[in-house]
Amino acid sequence: MRSNTAASAPIVDRSKARTRRSSGRGNARADVQRQVDYWNLRNPFEPAKIFSEDAVDAIHEEALTVLQDLGMKVLSKEARDLFRRTGALVDEESCMVRIGRDIVHDAIDTAPRSVLLKGGSAKRDLLLELGTLAIQTGAGAPHATDLDRGRRPGSLEDFTELIKLTQSYDIFHMLNPIVEAQDIPAHERHYRVNRVQLSLSDKVPFVYARGTAQVEDCFEMFQIARGLDDDEFRRAPRSFTVINTNSPRQLDVSMAQGLVDFARYGQLAIVTPFCLMGAMAPLTVAGALVLSHAEAMSAIALSQIARPGAPVCYGAFISNVDMKSGAPAFGTPEQFKANLGSGQLARKLGLPWRCSTGAAGAASDAQAANETQMGAWGAVLAGATVLLHGAGWIEGGLTLSYEKLITDLEVMQMFGEICAATPADEAALAMDALSEVPPGGHFFGASHTMKRFRTAFYEPIVADWSNYGTWRENDGMDANARANLIWKRKLEEFEAPRVDREGIGHLDEFIARRIEQGGANPV
Amino acid sequence: MRSNTAASAPIVDRSKARTRRSSGRGNARADVQRQVDYWNLRNPFEPAKIFSEDAVDAIHEEALTVLQDLGMKVLSKEARDLFRRTGALVDEESCMVRIGRDIVHDAIDTAPRSVLLKGGSAKRDLLLELGTLAIQTGAGAPHATDLDRGRRPGSLEDFTELIKLTQSYDIFHMLNPIVEAQDIPAHERHYRVNRVQLSLSDKVPFVYARGTAQVEDCFEMFQIARGLDDDEFRRAPRSFTVINTNSPRQLDVSMAQGLVDFARYGQLAIVTPFCLMGAMAPLTVAGALVLSHAEAMSAIALSQIARPGAPVCYGAFISNVDMKSGAPAFGTPEQFKANLGSGQLARKLGLPWRCSTGAAGAASDAQAANETQMGAWGAVLAGATVLLHGAGWIEGGLTLSYEKLITDLEVMQMFGEICAATPADEAALAMDALSEVPPGGHFFGASHTMKRFRTAFYEPIVADWSNYGTWRENDGMDANARANLIWKRKLEEFEAPRVDREGIGHLDEFIARRIEQGGANPV
Repeated sequence: MRSNTAASAPIVDRSKARTRRSSGRGNARADVQRQVDYWNLRNPFEPAKIFSEDAVDAIHEEALTVLQDLGMKVLSKEARDLFRRTGALVDEESCMVRIGRDIVHDAIDTAPRSVLLKGGSAKRDLLLELGTLAIQTGAGAPHATDLDRGRRPGSLEDFTELIKLTQSYDIFHMLNPIVEAQDIPAHERHYRVNRVQLSLSDKVPFVYARGTAQVEDCFEMFQIARGLDDDEFRRAPRSFTVINTNSPRQLDVSMAQGLVDFARYGQLAIVTPFCLMGAMAPLTVAGALVLSHAEAMSAIALSQIARPGAPVCYGAFISNVDMKSGAPAFGTPEQFKANLGSGQLARKLGLPWRCSTGAAGAASDAQAANETQMGAWGAVLAGATVLLHGAGWIEGGLTLSYEKLITDLEVMQMFGEICAATPADEAALAMDALSEVPPGGHFFGASHTMKRFRTAFYEPIVADWSNYGTWRENDGMDANARANLIWKRKLEEFEAPRVDREGIGHLDEFIARRIEQGGANPV
Repeated sequence: MRSNTAASAPIVDRSKARTRRSSGRGNARADVQRQVDYWNLRNPFEPAKIFSEDAVDAIHEEALTVLQDLGMKVLSKEARDLFRRTGALVDEESCMVRIGRDIVHDAIDTAPRSVLLKGGSAKRDLLLELGTLAIQTGAGAPHATDLDRGRRPGSLEDFTELIKLTQSYDIFHMLNPIVEAQDIPAHERHYRVNRVQLSLSDKVPFVYARGTAQVEDCFEMFQIARGLDDDEFRRAPRSFTVINTNSPRQLDVSMAQGLVDFARYGQLAIVTPFCLMGAMAPLTVAGALVLSHAEAMSAIALSQIARPGAPVCYGAFISNVDMKSGAPAFGTPEQFKANLGSGQLARKLGLPWRCSTGAAGAASDAQAANETQMGAWGAVLAGATVLLHGAGWIEGGLTLSYEKLITDLEVMQMFGEICAATPADEAALAMDALSEVPPGGHFFGASHTMKRFRTAFYEPIVADWSNYGTWRENDGMDANARANLIWKRKLEEFEAPRVDREGIGHLDEFIARRIEQGGANPV
């Protein structure tokens, strides 16, 4: 871990600690209350490296060569025109765009190093930059599953419940398209989903870039619900999208248009090539990074060409496939390594960046738990700014498990705890307690313990620490069975945050009118 | 990760890579075979820090103060005499031994920085020093459990099966008392258990320090089975024990005697205070480290006083209790932090050291999986030389789960994979493949892929990456159900390593004779 970050700030120099005690003021009381802020996390680890600086430079240079010599296929005419105006070589017939090194560098230079996302309330503002850590649940699952209702296509009800759960835990820092509300027709889904986000949460909402019409609908809804005029809205990012390139080397119409739209409205685009090694990318970690880095840079460049200074995150989602079946795998050692490499490349650009974990397992079991934690460690040690798919993902993201959302939540909260400072001042060194307790004795009754025991340790959500006998008497429930009770109780107890009720009223009128007019189909 | 370790050694400077290709020799073929050596692991991570150097110094100084001013209660007369002869202040009535700073420093100075454990075959030799990584399964469980036979008191049959499984996987580097063979009377248990270790495995065996009689029995058995005379045996460590202090500040007869006996025979003692924060130790991480560090230093000092240069490992096993119930917890954020702090203290001494993970959960489920992985990350990032309880532990070590042994094994193998080098030479950068595959295409058929696909990725043991439909058709087994089949198949296929059959014959004669003579009771 870094020695000079917030995490070690409370570590007191011995000489100072001595001075403080000798002053007789005794501020031990202030140390007693352990308060962990899961919202404003700073990553306490020195970012881990997997490659030498030379190797990182080589990957970066090869990625620039890919963009300059091989090029990207850009399916949007507007995006091609934007690239052409900067001097990129565009072939209209093949849609190939070859982007010179200087164009890429100049564009990336204008991307902000720090993005302050404005939440629906001030306490939900979120700073994204190298060194901060924000966590998201799994996203984009077509299906949902839980122990009561089984596996089914995602519905608006599922989406609503899962947004409530996301809202309920500080460790989930942003909303996202956690499941697809497949029961809502495609041309009106964005209205319904957006209303859920805006009425039940004050965290920063997500928008799918499925064409300008839907995107502008969503932006208008944010303005209506949160009482902002167009200027105010454009002044700061209040929503975000994830832009996946179509690896290898392709940017489709909706993604390219999304980059342009989000840039123009000053909203955040998180650029994320999805590169499965062996399938859409070379099967070597270094080769996959060349491709992913090239695609990410091309997309960031497009956003900056559309509007210099537009808020943007670098991103990577690199894992591997099973070379026997082609099935995607997540939480693998290869994903872990690719995460570290992505972090090195993100730091080379100096941009906030998104990283990913995931789980391939079809059930919320030890496999899936281990996969999600393994990938998450890769992302955290890589210094990711935004960790995606941190909770609930199974089946490689095809399904969101309510129970796994809770068991993974515990791991994410542990990351939050690890981010918190660990005092080593005189009170923490506990010499009074060590003198007080005799050899072979115990510290339960020591005054040092009595002052601190209520808040000394992380209190788990789902972990059951009781002994075997007690555990059996309590129905011998496994973690999933307990998680099932936890999410149900959390939904029962849910209280929506204070939102502008009048704004929601106007929102409903807007939605009714737009659906009456035919809605907006995805592109 | 470190840039200059073995892990990054194969990373080739771009200029060199170019030169190599231009020489026309084309050694791409050599890069194609991914070979991961799970036996000789070097930790690829720069050790993580949780405390500033000042704070580490403060903890170290307070630990020395504990030994000098408060002292240790040492229940063994022989150990007290050894301490007294170095100048420590001994009170025979209270058994308290106060050990001055200089005595501690002088003793620790003679401890070897590097320990080469000799295995039953040359390939099982194991180097322990700062930077190497050896992994053990869970150890010391009174009970065993599996899906077929349920939870039961550990038996010699369980011990035998579990030693076979430990032997079967390179990632488990040392044997250990994985379960207690409760069906064997205490006075003959060490013979039976030791015979299993010596006849079914060539990995370094474990001895419980339960009195000199048992220890010397075991040492004689090693000599008999492996055809060594006493001098040869004493020349290198060929076995090890774990010495737990009785925290706080107490060293009982068998542990103190064990330290002395192992030192005299030149066998390895891994010193490990077991400090549960809030129970046997202060509830602050820094306070628990003061105690654990003091106890570890006192025990290491005793071993070095008994025989300077005796092989020894520093060790720590610090976790916390549930302050509501007193129940021990493992794999917590507090254990994670204590692991990092222990690593900083071990590096201060410069000694190889043992660290621990664990799981409190009563079942092999997502909770227990997450706990074991969380604690293991703490140990690995802390730069532990020996990681204990890496697989199979549940119920805070009261039970060894066969299924969890396998699911955790997967995580340990992933650590092994992460230790392996990640090439970034020209072949790995894969520009040929990136040129070959068109935008939107795939890499399955690329020649770069075809050359490497068989060995490109880690092949999981228990993880099932098939899609939901296929998974359901294959009985929809969770990780535990698959793990159950895996350990049973592994036992069926087990082949004992080549051992000296004649030696085993002599061993059986020795055992028969000693049991006839009444065996040796534990102290």
